[in-house]
Amino acid sequence: MDPEKDIQMMRQALREAQKAYEEGEIPVGAVITIGDRIIARGHNQVERLNDPTAHAEIIALTSAFNFLGSKYLPDATLYVTVEPCLMCAGALYWSKIGRVVQGTADPKNGYLHTCGDNNPFHPKTVLTRDVMMEECATLMKSFFQSKR
Amino acid sequence: MDPEKDIQMMRQALREAQKAYEEGEIPVGAVITIGDRIIARGHNQVERLNDPTAHAEIIALTSAFNFLGSKYLPDATLYVTVEPCLMCAGALYWSKIGRVVQGTADPKNGYLHTCGDNNPFHPKTVLTRDVMMEECATLMKSFFQSKR
Repeated sequence: MDPEKDIQMMRQALREAQKAYEEGEIPVGAVITIGDRIIARGHNQVERLNDPTAHAEIIALTSAFNFLGSKYLPDATLYVTVEPCLMCAGALYWSKIGRVVQGTADPKNGYLHTCGDNNPFHPKTVLTRDVMMEECATLMKSFFQSKR
Repeated sequence: MDPEKDIQMMRQALREAQKAYEEGEIPVGAVITIGDRIIARGHNQVERLNDPTAHAEIIALTSAFNFLGSKYLPDATLYVTVEPCLMCAGALYWSKIGRVVQGTADPKNGYLHTCGDNNPFHPKTVLTRDVMMEECATLMKSFFQSKR
């Protein structure tokens, strides 16, 4: 775990979130990396696809499974700008992903709201929180303020 | 809620589960209904699609969103042969589905394992358990015994 690399990759996830913002979607973005390489990207497309499950993490995961031809991602890291929801935490569990790096928390819809002290991820998944937290949170706040 | 209709629709979900069984997949099946009409079907396709998120419920939900052109399903009921996992419970939350009818419990991977007393579904979603429980459980047991 290299804090400099985490910031660099979270910046890429933020670029994905910015795409969502510009498309009128709740601005959440994600990238999946193996080593120094980004193997998948995703941004929230709930409105565009008319599908409330089309979250950034799910889109990035599906892309990663296809790219690798594998249904497990033990060597991969997911960077996501906002704490995953219960559905995305469950999808990450099934992927056996090696590491999850999250930007800002989501007290309303994040998995912690429902899971409490129970870890929803695979026991081997390492979790890192609060990477570029303020930038990730600012983008969300700006989106919701613009919608009022 | 009509117990006769629930059994009839769960039988359809079991037919989907049987398809999964025959394809070498963990035998879980689902149908989504509105009134007396089945609007979507799904069976587990994790191995076939090389995607650990390709659960019966997710496939049926995506199909229902597409069919209705709507991202919310307040008037629909999902029948699923096995208790949904955390991911599927989260997806059902986002769909705001009216009702979930489940066959057998899944103490290992079902949502209750992680959620405990916290309800993962939308507050308006009505849950019915143990419909054709034995038939649904027998298919699962038979699958895992055949794999040993």
